[in-house]
Amino acid sequence: MKPPVATLLSALLAASAAHAAAAPVPAPATQVARTSAEVLAGSAPSDWRTPDPQNTLYLELTAGRVVIEMAPEFAPHHVANVAALARGGYFDGLAIVRAQDNYVVQWADPDAKKPVGAAQRTVNAEFERPLRGLTLVRLPDPDTYAPEVGFIDGFPVAADPSVGRAWLVHCYGMVGAGRDNDVDSGGGTEIYAVIGQAPRHLDRNVTLFGRVLAGMDLLSVLPRGGGALGFYEHAGERVPIKSLRVAADVPAAQRTELEVLRTDTPTFQAYLAARRNRTEEWFKVPAGHVDVCNVPVPVRKRHAPVAAGGRSAG
Amino acid sequence: MKPPVATLLSALLAASAAHAAAAPVPAPATQVARTSAEVLAGSAPSDWRTPDPQNTLYLELTAGRVVIEMAPEFAPHHVANVAALARGGYFDGLAIVRAQDNYVVQWADPDAKKPVGAAQRTVNAEFERPLRGLTLVRLPDPDTYAPEVGFIDGFPVAADPSVGRAWLVHCYGMVGAGRDNDVDSGGGTEIYAVIGQAPRHLDRNVTLFGRVLAGMDLLSVLPRGGGALGFYEHAGERVPIKSLRVAADVPAAQRTELEVLRTDTPTFQAYLAARRNRTEEWFKVPAGHVDVCNVPVPVRKRHAPVAAGGRSAG
Repeated sequence: MKPPVATLLSALLAASAAHAAAAPVPAPATQVARTSAEVLAGSAPSDWRTPDPQNTLYLELTAGRVVIEMAPEFAPHHVANVAALARGGYFDGLAIVRAQDNYVVQWADPDAKKPVGAAQRTVNAEFERPLRGLTLVRLPDPDTYAPEVGFIDGFPVAADPSVGRAWLVHCYGMVGAGRDNDVDSGGGTEIYAVIGQAPRHLDRNVTLFGRVLAGMDLLSVLPRGGGALGFYEHAGERVPIKSLRVAADVPAAQRTELEVLRTDTPTFQAYLAARRNRTEEWFKVPAGHVDVCNVPVPVRKRHAPVAAGGRSAG
Repeated sequence: MKPPVATLLSALLAASAAHAAAAPVPAPATQVARTSAEVLAGSAPSDWRTPDPQNTLYLELTAGRVVIEMAPEFAPHHVANVAALARGGYFDGLAIVRAQDNYVVQWADPDAKKPVGAAQRTVNAEFERPLRGLTLVRLPDPDTYAPEVGFIDGFPVAADPSVGRAWLVHCYGMVGAGRDNDVDSGGGTEIYAVIGQAPRHLDRNVTLFGRVLAGMDLLSVLPRGGGALGFYEHAGERVPIKSLRVAADVPAAQRTELEVLRTDTPTFQAYLAARRNRTEEWFKVPAGHVDVCNVPVPVRKRHAPVAAGGRSAG
């Protein structure tokens, strides 16, 4: 059950190398034992990427804004359809209709009758995709559910190389398209976000298409519904949605400018090492491992304007 | 990474056997494929146990009651000390001082000065205990963090047989005693409950002594604190605690009478099988595995009075 020592050493050495780059004369004690805060503090601007506003959603609630990054590499048709629904104003005035403790919140048209405009009401399932063409930043740790797990562009991903397939993983904050029993009955008119222990049994059973970058606590604190599956029993309990918009359609001055830590860098390897074996003084027994859903990929307010000709979203 | 087929078959056969006992002429299709709801509906009264009121706590908030079962097999000194603190009225009038999203809520004396009466202010760490004397109902699935995981008396447990040690696991709803950097600085004057993705890196680093049986959603919806680690920044944000009492000290008519599914039974094996491979029509790809923190041990209102001479808590 333990990862090969060589793998652990490799991660530690990657951390060490990253640290050496940031601080030419590191103290030996910190060379292989940085905290995640230290790793992030020592990161370079190039360790961060700016999400593409065309693939970013703003869910506007009375309490504030939830920012969702979509994953067109994994669910291109759902991403396009949710954007079309948003652009048609489908969600404006609808509501969060369900909050099930330790599971999901979900928003939808309570009557399931609102016209979808130029969008489609349903989209065929995008539960998984070919592994080919993807570069999984793999965790060395054993996973309960999948042969391989890791990260791609900040998203938690599982893969089965024996069949050449990959899929997004139901971690805290992941966003998907609810469906009925028919696998092709989803499409984005019902959207859920995970607010509890990773429901990994949903992996490959429903289309994930994004993850919450900011405002997660606006969803996680919502009163749980008293009905079956956490549905609110009375219309008055529902949480109104002011709007769901594509960030690119929002005036620049009104956008939430975020950066996401790149997951294909030595800095991310150092961050993984710090998550795997906490070195803060408080910790006495290093875990030696980390679950893919226990690696929240860091997000921060963008602290410098993007220079002309600078990096586009990646 | 996949469990042996024989292990899966064994679990399925256990489910089948349990079902056969409940329904003499089961349909072949359901014989090896019951849902967890069906398993629970077919359970016998002897599949359930009544928690010992001496090891049960009632955390009374304005919003309602949180019921916590303590685990003296794993943390006897913490359990005794928390009971002593409760009996001395230590927590009455204190507050929930911290709510960190996807992590923990914590209650304590904000001033850390209230006298502890007949209790102790600190208790030596009880992070783990000898495996000997315990019967772990083991999961066949690989665990990211520990050589073995499973259940004992409804509590999630990890074990390392190579060193003969066992410990409680930080799943959703688990309750522990906060501490400072000194491992022996806890004891129960600060208590936390897990409200997010299982923080397994805390395992063996802090003393867990119980789990929430009911009222978890009273904790999980609390507004998150804006300070570091989710501490509330202003006294007015704190969530008042009316009282923390030992259930045995509460008049019988005012108790919350609960039953917990036994975890040492064929019925629990059938429940595990149903959690591992969901057979509800909605599911298309069975996970084939289950994480120890994705098996919420069922709790229900006690639906029949305990007969004289009936089972005591177990």
